[in-house]
Amino acid sequence: MRSSAPRGRLWLVPNTLDLGSSEALPLSACLPAEVIERAAALKHWVVEDAKTTRAFLKRVQAVCPLVQPLQALDIRELPRPPKDGRAAPEPQAWRTLLAPALAGEDIGLLSEAGLPGVADPGAALVAAAHEAAVPVVALAGASSLTMALAASGLHGQSFAFAGYLPTEPAARAARLRELEARSRREGQTQIAIETPYRNAALAAALIATLQPDTRLAIACGLTLPAGWCLTRRVQDWRVAPPAFGDRPLPTVFLWLAT
Amino acid sequence: MRSSAPRGRLWLVPNTLDLGSSEALPLSACLPAEVIERAAALKHWVVEDAKTTRAFLKRVQAVCPLVQPLQALDIRELPRPPKDGRAAPEPQAWRTLLAPALAGEDIGLLSEAGLPGVADPGAALVAAAHEAAVPVVALAGASSLTMALAASGLHGQSFAFAGYLPTEPAARAARLRELEARSRREGQTQIAIETPYRNAALAAALIATLQPDTRLAIACGLTLPAGWCLTRRVQDWRVAPPAFGDRPLPTVFLWLAT
Repeated sequence: MRSSAPRGRLWLVPNTLDLGSSEALPLSACLPAEVIERAAALKHWVVEDAKTTRAFLKRVQAVCPLVQPLQALDIRELPRPPKDGRAAPEPQAWRTLLAPALAGEDIGLLSEAGLPGVADPGAALVAAAHEAAVPVVALAGASSLTMALAASGLHGQSFAFAGYLPTEPAARAARLRELEARSRREGQTQIAIETPYRNAALAAALIATLQPDTRLAIACGLTLPAGWCLTRRVQDWRVAPPAFGDRPLPTVFLWLAT
Repeated sequence: MRSSAPRGRLWLVPNTLDLGSSEALPLSACLPAEVIERAAALKHWVVEDAKTTRAFLKRVQAVCPLVQPLQALDIRELPRPPKDGRAAPEPQAWRTLLAPALAGEDIGLLSEAGLPGVADPGAALVAAAHEAAVPVVALAGASSLTMALAASGLHGQSFAFAGYLPTEPAARAARLRELEARSRREGQTQIAIETPYRNAALAAALIATLQPDTRLAIACGLTLPAGWCLTRRVQDWRVAPPAFGDRPLPTVFLWLAT
């Protein structure tokens, strides 16, 4: 698949972290000015969701004129990712999405929040770009996972992201105990996320299952005015449980056993 | 330690990723405008290195006036972190650093690159802030680890950061084999870093030690004009080894075994 033909680049465009929030922040709270300018200059997009991408590009347009009218941009959606995230992409599908880059035009990759491919779809397209010798350029942007880790004060020299946990209570408790044992053994901070409407259920499971002296951090609505991050021992969360409020916000859960 | 006295906040200020590079980028390439404004408004700082913090604040000042002259800012350095990152902080030392917040003034926490506390010092101060009921606010900023993960195209739904690896060859090879086995068993992308002058040695060890069909990504100089990210199977790296150039740049190594 390699050739000497000139290639466009695949730009990884960070999104904001306010997905699903009704508090509209200016893009300048979350994205560097040069990233906004780069996004405004792209004609071709491959995205997780075309509708929310148009909303994102309207926010870009409010700061920096788009290279061509929004309606004239080429916006295509990623295929749904396989459940376990490991199935090989079908080469032809990815090659079609990469066609503009193979013809010398730049492409932007955008997911619903934060960095594409990090706890979000996009990795398979990036892998196909590497295979096709399309240069991949990551623009500076935030991931809620590393921001939550910084805000937690838990160990940031060794950590693991476990993705979504089982929702069935017994399987979830078993998985939490397994991850807590690893955290204690290796000094490794464990990180997990949940769809926001299940935040309270996951918090309750963590507080009920983990050991009393394990430190548990909850980072809710990062970058939002209503956001908060608290780190307490499980025994203290049992006395004063977290309050998630009426509107579910994106939340990251982290714990470290000692 | 909790009380109802008014508290200042501990702001986690992201730094750029161009540490040690001679290519000076404008801050707007890496930091959101509101983050630069927030940094300009802070009078009290706790930092990894006072000298480079002054250089950072000069770049801030070029974009946004500082709240008071640079020479008049209160800039204090973090104590050196314990080797294993897990020793309990001495309460009084942290309380002294947090004194401005306990008296109602905001504090900025800054490390040498990216997010404080993520592969960098700062976590112990954040933990002490949580203990002292000082609100912790993370500002939107990039971590080279999650940016490299996005750019690698490797599995971003499950990953682990192992920090620095042993430098002694036999111990390093054993550790790499252990992490590769876990990567294969759990589908977990493994991430490690090295001090830039040892990049070539770590790359050589990875390429010699990992299995031929393991995918290895090298993300070098992220956000810099000279930066690059390539993902190839180990067997392909053996044919065309990475070229790090004359000047050592911060580099992230990632691998996924299948």
